[in-house]
Amino acid sequence: MSFEVKAYAAKEKKGSLAPHDIERREVGDNDVHIDITYCGVCHSDIHSVNNDWGNAKYPMVPGHEIIGKVKSVGPNVTNFAVGDLVGVGCMVDSCRTCSSCKQDLEQYCEEGMVGTYNGKDKHLGGHTFGGYSESIVVDQEYVLRVPTNLDEKAIAPLLCAGITTYSPLNHWGVKKGDKVGVIGLGGLGHMGIKFAAAMGAHVVMITTSPSKSADAKRLGADEVLISKNIDEMEQHRGTFDFLLNTVPVGHDVNPYLDLLKLDATMVLVGAIEPLEPMHGGKLILGRKRLAGSLIGGIKETQEMLDFCGEHDIVSDVEMINIDEINEAYKRVQNNDVKYRFVIDMKSL
Amino acid sequence: MSFEVKAYAAKEKKGSLAPHDIERREVGDNDVHIDITYCGVCHSDIHSVNNDWGNAKYPMVPGHEIIGKVKSVGPNVTNFAVGDLVGVGCMVDSCRTCSSCKQDLEQYCEEGMVGTYNGKDKHLGGHTFGGYSESIVVDQEYVLRVPTNLDEKAIAPLLCAGITTYSPLNHWGVKKGDKVGVIGLGGLGHMGIKFAAAMGAHVVMITTSPSKSADAKRLGADEVLISKNIDEMEQHRGTFDFLLNTVPVGHDVNPYLDLLKLDATMVLVGAIEPLEPMHGGKLILGRKRLAGSLIGGIKETQEMLDFCGEHDIVSDVEMINIDEINEAYKRVQNNDVKYRFVIDMKSL
Repeated sequence: MSFEVKAYAAKEKKGSLAPHDIERREVGDNDVHIDITYCGVCHSDIHSVNNDWGNAKYPMVPGHEIIGKVKSVGPNVTNFAVGDLVGVGCMVDSCRTCSSCKQDLEQYCEEGMVGTYNGKDKHLGGHTFGGYSESIVVDQEYVLRVPTNLDEKAIAPLLCAGITTYSPLNHWGVKKGDKVGVIGLGGLGHMGIKFAAAMGAHVVMITTSPSKSADAKRLGADEVLISKNIDEMEQHRGTFDFLLNTVPVGHDVNPYLDLLKLDATMVLVGAIEPLEPMHGGKLILGRKRLAGSLIGGIKETQEMLDFCGEHDIVSDVEMINIDEINEAYKRVQNNDVKYRFVIDMKSL
Repeated sequence: MSFEVKAYAAKEKKGSLAPHDIERREVGDNDVHIDITYCGVCHSDIHSVNNDWGNAKYPMVPGHEIIGKVKSVGPNVTNFAVGDLVGVGCMVDSCRTCSSCKQDLEQYCEEGMVGTYNGKDKHLGGHTFGGYSESIVVDQEYVLRVPTNLDEKAIAPLLCAGITTYSPLNHWGVKKGDKVGVIGLGGLGHMGIKFAAAMGAHVVMITTSPSKSADAKRLGADEVLISKNIDEMEQHRGTFDFLLNTVPVGHDVNPYLDLLKLDATMVLVGAIEPLEPMHGGKLILGRKRLAGSLIGGIKETQEMLDFCGEHDIVSDVEMINIDEINEAYKRVQNNDVKYRFVIDMKSL
């Protein structure tokens, strides 16, 4: 009931990734078999490989920014045909019956979504294997259609970095003329700038690094605000309609809350970590809101991909071969990538 | 252009309150002169007297939960007549022209609302004096009409504790059938229970103290959840539509965030202090929101008073004479009051 495919895996905690054969299930009635062409490298891949979140299962095949071509489909598959360009993001299944799933918010499935890797494999038992692999078999309900007018290799990061930033901008209703700040310029932040600009917002890149100014403007920012400059921060106090905070580690959110207008919201998408102590008065004095957002549901991810096709949006990527993955991980950890590594899976 | 009235004042930091004459302005064209009958004792009075927030001006006459009868009115006053029962809350003026003021949110006035005490007095210079006083002169736009069907002395705390809890419940749209948690049973919390119950919510009192259970139910709570009981907290995980957090000091909000449903909000109204470190994942995993709310605007305060008249809601109060004020402050600091001290100003 399964077949073997080539992949790259971490075999144990803190180990490097190396070639490793894995099992994929046979193509079921509702399944799409995808030949993977490109897979993005997400910072969470590194956290997972290193078991930073304490739930790692080995051997681990990371990768949840998957682009590929349909190789075959099961008899009940109606939305996809052989040869179609498709994508798979952070999840490959969910309970489909809970309140969250019924609202098209499978990422918040009450039983827990099935992660594309390190999730519970309902079919073969054990755990799921991700996209650092030659192919994958996924239920059609969790496969995305990919616009064909875009640079194929630069689409992969849209499946995680893209939807993670698009979803809060979309959900909180960012619109033309809004003043939107994007905090942190990395894999997530650079997508946040592109989306907010495409939505018509006045986009301010908020960063600690003056050296990132030129690139922020190239990506679509109207202004750059250096968060370490107290005078500049003071000039922007109380003027933002929305803040998208992509900082991936615990940090001090207080100075950013001062930037919000009355009733405005800052959304965290990166910091799944303890934050430095926040002052309650920063929220109370101005009825401000701090929220969080996790990737996006399948329906919204499809909307995001369609939006990218319409607005000609892709990620800025640096291509690597699979045998460069361990070096790429080190560079991600050093913030030395503009802005996302993508693995060319032909190199496997 | 002024006249002298009797009051009780703190003459210097950490000093006790004692009799002290103060100046009130003559009644201007738009002014209402109010004989104060009752004044509530808010915890913030004590913070202010002790200069805990670093902005105290002495001599200080605290008191912003003021009830009284109209003694005279200026020629332009149309909404109030001599003898009317009226109230004054936390502010007596604001800029009236900023975006917040134009939205009837004077409490968030961009130039800063004029506090009923310790604010900048535009008329006499110096600073404003509050309600621990025989009378006060206030612009008609900042005077509230008080329902006459309620127990007069128990209305005073509605002007601060009442609006502070009514406003977030109202603004975030709490409605019949919602599961609402009120965290902390004190001056604010006991009003939160009454309002949430009157709005038709299923009200859960969330407290560290099992001894408060009976009283919480008497006040209108349907259930009591002891926040130190991990099993009980787990049973309520992910089930709340709204949480009103009245805890007046810095604390750990993480366990409460676990109680919220997808997309639900916890609003802080008490803790104008640094909170213990919050884990970003508590917001991200469930798209949850943490917000703050400060009292309410004049229009909403009037709505709250009308709602109280309609639903027969007042505060639970313990009456004191003005010469008992220093002892009352000590008891407030020891949480030894159910649930609000109110000064009978005839005792002045």
